[in-house]
Amino acid sequence: MTTSYRAAGVDIAAATRAKELMAEAVRSTHGPAVLAGMGAFGGCFDLAAAGAAGQSVLVASTDGVGTKTLVAAAVGRYDTVGQDLVNHCVNDILVQGARPLFFLDYVAAARLDPDQMAAIVGGVATACRAVGCALLGGETAEMPDVYAPGAFDLAGTIVGVVERDALLPRPDIASGDLIIALPSSGLHTNGYSLARRIAGLGTEGDPYAARPAILGGQSVGEALLAVHRCYLPEVLALRAAVPLKGLAHITGGGIFDNLPRILPAGLGATIERGSWPIPPIFSYLVARGQLAEQEAFHALNMGLGMLAVVPAGAAGAALDAVPEAYRVGVVTDEPGVRLV
Amino acid sequence: MTTSYRAAGVDIAAATRAKELMAEAVRSTHGPAVLAGMGAFGGCFDLAAAGAAGQSVLVASTDGVGTKTLVAAAVGRYDTVGQDLVNHCVNDILVQGARPLFFLDYVAAARLDPDQMAAIVGGVATACRAVGCALLGGETAEMPDVYAPGAFDLAGTIVGVVERDALLPRPDIASGDLIIALPSSGLHTNGYSLARRIAGLGTEGDPYAARPAILGGQSVGEALLAVHRCYLPEVLALRAAVPLKGLAHITGGGIFDNLPRILPAGLGATIERGSWPIPPIFSYLVARGQLAEQEAFHALNMGLGMLAVVPAGAAGAALDAVPEAYRVGVVTDEPGVRLV
Repeated sequence: MTTSYRAAGVDIAAATRAKELMAEAVRSTHGPAVLAGMGAFGGCFDLAAAGAAGQSVLVASTDGVGTKTLVAAAVGRYDTVGQDLVNHCVNDILVQGARPLFFLDYVAAARLDPDQMAAIVGGVATACRAVGCALLGGETAEMPDVYAPGAFDLAGTIVGVVERDALLPRPDIASGDLIIALPSSGLHTNGYSLARRIAGLGTEGDPYAARPAILGGQSVGEALLAVHRCYLPEVLALRAAVPLKGLAHITGGGIFDNLPRILPAGLGATIERGSWPIPPIFSYLVARGQLAEQEAFHALNMGLGMLAVVPAGAAGAALDAVPEAYRVGVVTDEPGVRLV
Repeated sequence: MTTSYRAAGVDIAAATRAKELMAEAVRSTHGPAVLAGMGAFGGCFDLAAAGAAGQSVLVASTDGVGTKTLVAAAVGRYDTVGQDLVNHCVNDILVQGARPLFFLDYVAAARLDPDQMAAIVGGVATACRAVGCALLGGETAEMPDVYAPGAFDLAGTIVGVVERDALLPRPDIASGDLIIALPSSGLHTNGYSLARRIAGLGTEGDPYAARPAILGGQSVGEALLAVHRCYLPEVLALRAAVPLKGLAHITGGGIFDNLPRILPAGLGATIERGSWPIPPIFSYLVARGQLAEQEAFHALNMGLGMLAVVPAGAAGAALDAVPEAYRVGVVTDEPGVRLV
């Protein structure tokens, strides 16, 4: 009796096929800064060709898309979570003032399905191209016994660059500064374990196929898979128009945990209820799950995808620069974030 | 009835405690190039402070440790896989000629155990410190329903730097060049699905507790968890002593898939059986699993952790510089890698 690697649950041929399917998508993201043809173990990126100068600071962030992967697998749609991942990571370095340079992805599952993997990485490449970010490398891992059948995980790392004097947040955020919200497209990539549980409450069949009236024709699955918005264009427009003081990407922990991260010690903020429209998927989840307001705003972004802090006199110019933004609150001299 | 985030299987308090436990280990890796106190979403790294010059090329790589995580979980030892991960990634950029700058890790499980997470990330930090690499960021994700109970995944991304004229492999690798092997400590991070299957063959109890005579007192679990060697010191010694032409890190696909990646088109290599000692864990797995030689050398490194290509006349100087290395083969003008 011989034991083969394939019998042990690892299919190297499938992995190779997945890589071939991904190769073209990956190459489509490569600009002149990517050194090609290295037959490489690691990707090579030429800083000077990307316009990085002497005072450049690299900004790096690793993140995943949480159990949004389970919704994607249940709905059978694999091309959007890759976009979610990249956009999440781009937003995470935007808040430091950085622009994206390159990205690396990590996809793992109990068993590699080459077409699913290609769809996932194709989504990663699509979102990278949209922001001029090179998909420099990545890893697909077949992990029998680690992952639940049909489940997969997706994580990624972004590296961006910022000149020292453009780093955010600026230290001069002060009481009285205004808070502008850039609207989210939905849950983005946080709160999916809660959302999946609520969607499944009292349901025998497929919880994602339901089309409750509040979603206006969309299924729950479609609303939950709405792609995480990338705020690069809006942030560039804001920075060109006003002295932007800080940005908070509203991810896990919601406004309560994320906004304080950019506020100087001793300061807090109030966010006015009703000052922005809450997307229907949140109203659906809050009602169906009977979520308390604090719980909802802690687990979910509730429509507030990115918060920007601008000087009091700059709100008009900010809203002119980004017409779909809302003025939602103000920085106060009382610590903590309060809904008022 | 209200649905809380904790009831949905996500424990934010546990995640916060895990982060606190990790914070000190992470800080211990930070040199002057890491911009501190950013309260940051992403980590900031000052290239100039790290000595990167104008012609610098960044080299980045993402990888995981495969199902070695399952062996670690079964044995209950969580401090070594983090070292495996970093050392694997360091080796992956060494083969491009790069030195490590910074690292970001990703740890995910169905349920976060703060102490296990802290042990894992502590291992990451230990290995980072050993090579002067900053642990710049990371993500711990609690993913109910994605991971099997008790299982976890661990992946990471390294970013390093190399001056353009020091990039490897050099294009002048030629027939007649010699191949030097740096010995592995064991399986490193590849072949664990196969190894776990073989270890479990015909076993009712814990397959990792067995202490077969061939392992000289070590248990199977201990031998399988041997830490992936980092070859930074050996590679620095080699580069100082000889005109190093190329390096191949022997990972998934073994010598057959990894060595050809650095050879110019049309060239191949022969590796001489018996020219290096095969560590006992490989002999154990080959015998117990009745693995064919081709299969074993395709799935496992078989003791050949890193292969270095040097000019024919430089073998003596290479072995003087790294006394524990072996001369194991030669570059030929016949494509493919053959055991002879």
